[in-house]
Amino acid sequence: MASFREERDTFGPINVPSGKLWGAQTQRSLQNFDIGGERERMPEPIIRAFGVLKKCAAKVNMEYGLDQSIGKAIMQAAQEVAEGKLNDHFPLVVWQTGSGTQSNMNANEVISNRAAEIMGHKRGEKSVHPNDHVNKSQSSNDTFPTVMHIAAAMEINSRLIPELKNLHSALHSKSVEFKDIVKIGRTHTQDATPLTLGQEFSGYATQVKYGIDRVSGTLPRMYQLAQGGTAVGTGLNTKKGFDVKIAATVAEETKLPFVTAENKFEALAAHDAFVETSGALNTIAASLMKIANDIRFLGSGPRCGLGELILPENEPGSSIMPGKVNPTQCEALTMVCAQVMGNHVAITVGGSNGHFELNVFKPLMASALLHSIRLVSDASASFVKNCVKGIQANKDRISKLLHESLMLVTSLNPKIGYNNAAAVAKKAHKEGSSLKEAALNLGMLTEEELESLVVPEKMIAPSD
Amino acid sequence: MASFREERDTFGPINVPSGKLWGAQTQRSLQNFDIGGERERMPEPIIRAFGVLKKCAAKVNMEYGLDQSIGKAIMQAAQEVAEGKLNDHFPLVVWQTGSGTQSNMNANEVISNRAAEIMGHKRGEKSVHPNDHVNKSQSSNDTFPTVMHIAAAMEINSRLIPELKNLHSALHSKSVEFKDIVKIGRTHTQDATPLTLGQEFSGYATQVKYGIDRVSGTLPRMYQLAQGGTAVGTGLNTKKGFDVKIAATVAEETKLPFVTAENKFEALAAHDAFVETSGALNTIAASLMKIANDIRFLGSGPRCGLGELILPENEPGSSIMPGKVNPTQCEALTMVCAQVMGNHVAITVGGSNGHFELNVFKPLMASALLHSIRLVSDASASFVKNCVKGIQANKDRISKLLHESLMLVTSLNPKIGYNNAAAVAKKAHKEGSSLKEAALNLGMLTEEELESLVVPEKMIAPSD
Amino acid sequence: MASFREERDTFGPINVPSGKLWGAQTQRSLQNFDIGGERERMPEPIIRAFGVLKKCAAKVNMEYGLDQSIGKAIMQAAQEVAEGKLNDHFPLVVWQTGSGTQSNMNANEVISNRAAEIMGHKRGEKSVHPNDHVNKSQSSNDTFPTVMHIAAAMEINSRLIPELKNLHSALHSKSVEFKDIVKIGRTHTQDATPLTLGQEFSGYATQVKYGIDRVSGTLPRMYQLAQGGTAVGTGLNTKKGFDVKIAATVAEETKLPFVTAENKFEALAAHDAFVETSGALNTIAASLMKIANDIRFLGSGPRCGLGELILPENEPGSSIMPGKVNPTQCEALTMVCAQVMGNHVAITVGGSNGHFELNVFKPLMASALLHSIRLVSDASASFVKNCVKGIQANKDRISKLLHESLMLVTSLNPKIGYNNAAAVAKKAHKEGSSLKEAALNLGMLTEEELESLVVPEKMIAPSD
Amino acid sequence: MASFREERDTFGPINVPSGKLWGAQTQRSLQNFDIGGERERMPEPIIRAFGVLKKCAAKVNMEYGLDQSIGKAIMQAAQEVAEGKLNDHFPLVVWQTGSGTQSNMNANEVISNRAAEIMGHKRGEKSVHPNDHVNKSQSSNDTFPTVMHIAAAMEINSRLIPELKNLHSALHSKSVEFKDIVKIGRTHTQDATPLTLGQEFSGYATQVKYGIDRVSGTLPRMYQLAQGGTAVGTGLNTKKGFDVKIAATVAEETKLPFVTAENKFEALAAHDAFVETSGALNTIAASLMKIANDIRFLGSGPRCGLGELILPENEPGSSIMPGKVNPTQCEALTMVCAQVMGNHVAITVGGSNGHFELNVFKPLMASALLHSIRLVSDASASFVKNCVKGIQANKDRISKLLHESLMLVTSLNPKIGYNNAAAVAKKAHKEGSSLKEAALNLGMLTEEELESLVVPEKMIAPSD
Repeated sequence: MASFREERDTFGPINVPSGKLWGAQTQRSLQNFDIGGERERMPEPIIRAFGVLKKCAAKVNMEYGLDQSIGKAIMQAAQEVAEGKLNDHFPLVVWQTGSGTQSNMNANEVISNRAAEIMGHKRGEKSVHPNDHVNKSQSSNDTFPTVMHIAAAMEINSRLIPELKNLHSALHSKSVEFKDIVKIGRTHTQDATPLTLGQEFSGYATQVKYGIDRVSGTLPRMYQLAQGGTAVGTGLNTKKGFDVKIAATVAEETKLPFVTAENKFEALAAHDAFVETSGALNTIAASLMKIANDIRFLGSGPRCGLGELILPENEPGSSIMPGKVNPTQCEALTMVCAQVMGNHVAITVGGSNGHFELNVFKPLMASALLHSIRLVSDASASFVKNCVKGIQANKDRISKLLHESLMLVTSLNPKIGYNNAAAVAKKAHKEGSSLKEAALNLGMLTEEELESLVVPEKMIAPSD
Repeated sequence: MASFREERDTFGPINVPSGKLWGAQTQRSLQNFDIGGERERMPEPIIRAFGVLKKCAAKVNMEYGLDQSIGKAIMQAAQEVAEGKLNDHFPLVVWQTGSGTQSNMNANEVISNRAAEIMGHKRGEKSVHPNDHVNKSQSSNDTFPTVMHIAAAMEINSRLIPELKNLHSALHSKSVEFKDIVKIGRTHTQDATPLTLGQEFSGYATQVKYGIDRVSGTLPRMYQLAQGGTAVGTGLNTKKGFDVKIAATVAEETKLPFVTAENKFEALAAHDAFVETSGALNTIAASLMKIANDIRFLGSGPRCGLGELILPENEPGSSIMPGKVNPTQCEALTMVCAQVMGNHVAITVGGSNGHFELNVFKPLMASALLHSIRLVSDASASFVKNCVKGIQANKDRISKLLHESLMLVTSLNPKIGYNNAAAVAKKAHKEGSSLKEAALNLGMLTEEELESLVVPEKMIAPSD
Repeated sequence: MASFREERDTFGPINVPSGKLWGAQTQRSLQNFDIGGERERMPEPIIRAFGVLKKCAAKVNMEYGLDQSIGKAIMQAAQEVAEGKLNDHFPLVVWQTGSGTQSNMNANEVISNRAAEIMGHKRGEKSVHPNDHVNKSQSSNDTFPTVMHIAAAMEINSRLIPELKNLHSALHSKSVEFKDIVKIGRTHTQDATPLTLGQEFSGYATQVKYGIDRVSGTLPRMYQLAQGGTAVGTGLNTKKGFDVKIAATVAEETKLPFVTAENKFEALAAHDAFVETSGALNTIAASLMKIANDIRFLGSGPRCGLGELILPENEPGSSIMPGKVNPTQCEALTMVCAQVMGNHVAITVGGSNGHFELNVFKPLMASALLHSIRLVSDASASFVKNCVKGIQANKDRISKLLHESLMLVTSLNPKIGYNNAAAVAKKAHKEGSSLKEAALNLGMLTEEELESLVVPEKMIAPSD
Repeated sequence: MASFREERDTFGPINVPSGKLWGAQTQRSLQNFDIGGERERMPEPIIRAFGVLKKCAAKVNMEYGLDQSIGKAIMQAAQEVAEGKLNDHFPLVVWQTGSGTQSNMNANEVISNRAAEIMGHKRGEKSVHPNDHVNKSQSSNDTFPTVMHIAAAMEINSRLIPELKNLHSALHSKSVEFKDIVKIGRTHTQDATPLTLGQEFSGYATQVKYGIDRVSGTLPRMYQLAQGGTAVGTGLNTKKGFDVKIAATVAEETKLPFVTAENKFEALAAHDAFVETSGALNTIAASLMKIANDIRFLGSGPRCGLGELILPENEPGSSIMPGKVNPTQCEALTMVCAQVMGNHVAITVGGSNGHFELNVFKPLMASALLHSIRLVSDASASFVKNCVKGIQANKDRISKLLHESLMLVTSLNPKIGYNNAAAVAKKAHKEGSSLKEAALNLGMLTEEELESLVVPEKMIAPSD
């Protein structure tokens, strides 16, 4: 049978499960916001960032007079939160108050109860107080934006950029591996002049490289922390210098160059930094959609598609059709891209709807951006491991298509003139023959001449 | 220590946790699509819909020769899936193959192993075969769109529409309750001519009523099932009439008017029905955003806002400021609306990117639409229970604002003419006085005349 | 040299170009909203709808006492506006006041000056008054939503639906024309079991058919007119019954089933009907994107693509490569679809941001929806005329691909068993040979057996 | 009567209006893409950028052997295009081929005919050849992306950034002007602790400042030019070094730091730079939406709103209600923001749908981004001129609200303790009295004590 203990807030007493560290305000939120079920819980990076912040806040508060034994206990408890050890004690969903106050109180309550236990006291007794001690010099209105920035910056640095670099590296390697494979180009989806498969992959690699630049370019504003702004940005109830110290402490703790926001009013009332970073993710999604689409079309077949690439076979395609490799990694990746584009609109709508001193779409914006970061990171990793690395060029097919192509006729222009070259191409197109057959048939060139002139390898760069 | 059993597919053997009913293909997907973690699992309504479909398929297949004892065991196992009893055996995430094949195989594997157990056999022995028996006459390409439609239609009927009706009813009740409270109108956010608070709420109620009409209007296409189209829409490997029978069986099982899709090619290659229904959700989100915004602004204060509504206080706002009620339910609801708008874009992007005989953004589209449905439903329920029902009119404040307003001067026009009325209003505006003071001061009317003429209650309807 | 006349409003005198019919308020808006230049002028269908509405209003107002000679002159002037004869006198851009007040005044001013001229008076003298006569019983707040609905409903009925029907008809004709051409199917962009080209086009035709259903399904709410709500929805300054009469008169004038909105508060404060209809356009855009993408990929080549369709050549592709037909109509259409998806988000954002008694994103919403309607209509017409009608099947290529495909091996299963059939397919895939060669080589069947069994034509429907 | 001359291309002869400089391919596009009407013409900045590019190309081509007299004539003609003198000769709409080939040919044709005239020849004679001379060493596939980048970079530098700086400056000035006006803060739209009106405006100014940083941060990739990639990115038909020279020449011509794209394959096949820059515009739109919303709400009233700001009155609000100033500039600006958010989705969809060597959503992407840039620039300018500069603080109202507020009770905590302070606030809230009245009534402090303690001016910064 479930057992409960009584916790209290200014609304009075309320029962909380005995096994849980949270307090009254968390319990009320649980009951008042029954929206979406467990999947909709505040993302774990936010919980961990609360751990980081509350640890740093205790450290700084001790400089400003917080009792040392309480401060140390808070730091230890907060460290446990930062390490994800107390995740089960953060039951609140994203769809709560738009300031994230309830999640801030969840963190305060859990840390205060855990710190009390560390100090040998009981849960619920408030020997370590969630507001007076754990939340000291803070307001939900500055802590929640601060953890949003910490969580996003950490996820970008520890997850997104490494995986994008990994993807860039894998695509670049393929670009090098395929550098001598000349293939037909396609514009408007139609046959065009040749390029190498390596050149084609170099375009993909460049897209990803710029993607890294793009998201990195947004970090200066993501590294700005709202902490110290308290309720409306003025810093009421903090001491001068608190904001700078807390940012420095978070920077030290996370090894990331966080600084205090130059304008706290902006930092509470708007989350343009999230809209901006989401815009970088959106651009990356557009890039990855293009790359994954190309790879699946180039790998289409085995007989009735383009068939230039051989994609790794990771799971049974069909029990009937050997050789049918479904480009499932491309599919997962493009689905992720679509969701990232959607999350971007959600973030934009949230970001544009702040009012006065506080944007109250914070949990949504945090959740959607972290969702996008996680999905792009994981899907990139999966795409590299299960697709890109194993891509092989189908050289025979590539060569066959290249040499069947009519656009190689371009290279005859200098020898026989445009009109005659066009006549060759038109004849070949009409009769379904090769350029060579058509040219020989028209008696315009000898076989030797043709072979010396029609050299796709010379068509893949500017001339000297 | 974890124990495993060996399962096999055409790729060979693979270890599966002994405690799980899934088989080789599910296990491979788990390993190949490590994207997003547990939160990203295929939504439960899809799993349940697989239970419904597989049960119905077994029933129809028995008519076409499926062994009766196997068929009955499948039906029993599938019923357990439909009831959510086997959710733990569906570990796959949304970000997998775009056809949902792996989730279809997950269902086939779980049901076959469970059916085998029901018949007294062991897991993994394939005495009931996932493909030959459970997936008989089916392809992932028609089953997955079928469960998408079943899941969405069930969620709309059992969750969304009831909660929207509930919200409509709550708003309508308030409209009736407030029908005699005359208040200032606001256009361009500026003071305007009066209306009743009931009239204002009648607008909200109408928006929700039309929202129900909108989503209901999309159901005819949602009730069309792809089942029977098999791999590309032709129905290869099914018998004539299978499609009609399976739709009828699903209809009977769910008590919803499902029919077979009139064109199976469209039903596999496009999911326009999902884009359409998401469009209805998007419209509802726009409506609810407007309503929630109005309510929070009308309830703003307590001293420095509009203050016309008193919103229920569900949790501590601030330990300092009594009377500060944060409109947290409005905030949760508007955040949900933003996410629904975002999901709509994700669904649109997915829906527009199908190719040839198969759209391969199916799991994304299913997940995003079901997410939107769940969020709107739950947030509406929460909004009704924790906000709308408890809204009270702050009659004193409403009356004060109304009578301070300058636009009541309009009613003097017939008596003293437009120019004189304007002079009264201008004087009052300039001096910050009341209309009455200004008019008396200008000596234009007596106090009695003023009181008989300036009657907001006569300004809230067309005249006879 | 430009000449001017003086016009006045409550702000005082202002110079207006002598050649123009507009008055002071239009002139002020021109000067205060210098945003975007001439391209951003209020869309013509809105101007014409103002003509319709003002004509009808004069007619009804004459029943309620408006001077008959003035009323008739207004009707004549308004008719000229409705016919587009006075377009040059509507210079205001979309980006003005969010209520559209300035465009309403533009209409009032032009019609009053024109009516005055018809009656033998001079411009600017206000012998016919823009407010007292032309705008009688109206407010911008109800006229602008009314013209939004009139304009959208007229454009949908006269332009969009006819062009979509035209497109449906063209696609359906192709479906019939191609009904006996069996071709390879493609799922996941990979080779799959066959279907007919006619079946493939039947999917496209069905998408468009449902698109017509979707947009038609939104019309009941589009036919509701706000007129009679005046400033805030109460109908202040109108007589009872005015709303019903004006809707009936507009219905008669336009031959469309307009009715008075059942709730005028909703009709002014929200434009959910526009969000909804835009959602239908968005779904149609997703459909057309899919169709146009398929057609360009199926028509890709001429040598190195899929090459199953021959698209009409409308303009020089390249001076070098004969046979290179760029699918330019597909490109124009898909670009239009992208813009429609974007406009949909603009409309959604606008629709969700109304406050209190008035949504003030009206001109944006009107402009964006009318833009989407026009683009889809025109692009569909162009696509039909310049692409769909001229599409030919490349039967040789289709047949070649079909018969080279490995998936036809499926039909050998009943005869030689799955394992042997798989061996045949695997051998053919490995060696790049045909199924027939592989099967004969393995000695599994005779040539006669093979030819009787491998019959794609039997694979395109359920079996008896 | 209209007169025509005959022009020719590889499709044969076609009639072109005598008064127009365009040629056969332009004329065909006009006829084949009858989509949207004149408003949908290719944006003027693209036309001008074509002038710039073609001038520079002639200059560089002269170094590579182009006949000097032809080259000079081309340069002169191109200069006229760059100056907008030949706009009437560019009739093509955005909705054409997705590579922009037809607009490139339009430029080639107009410039060749105009150059021929300059040299004393006739139109249509091709004495200056559109392809061989004007388009020498170029392909539509590299020229169109090049003009996209030139046009966007020029518009951003000459229009957007100056107007944003102007807006920043105006908001910053207000921030300074209002630095000593203490006012109530609002979080969750509810009364909160005070800040200065200057602080509030400093948040807006910071948002705009960061917006400038954001768009500037995208320019490094916008300055990369595709020119020299020709058909598929390889640079076929150019000489080595052509790409670097043309970029340098464009940089010199425009005084902007253009460079040749480091990877031409990326530069043709993807337009991620446009998606990225549109993302910056989208963020700016979110910022401006927030700012404009705040200003209209803070300016709401005159009697029944917040009334803290007095907005300039630019046009008649209502003939009845003096003092009713509709925040029309805010409305225009927020409508623009909604459209920019929509255009961003259009650009994202276009950007994600490129295939192989060429993205064929180029004209859409160009048009939508230039539209967004223009709208934000013009609306910002209008907002500064017609709104921000004229904003006045309603000091009496601000002071009244501030002092009526209950949250000032916070400052009593140190003196009388939290519980007593809460009792004061609760009493005041319940009775509708002032804090002072309540406190005196409860006998907790003297009037002198109250006046020395309740000092909002001390609540607007961290303490020493």
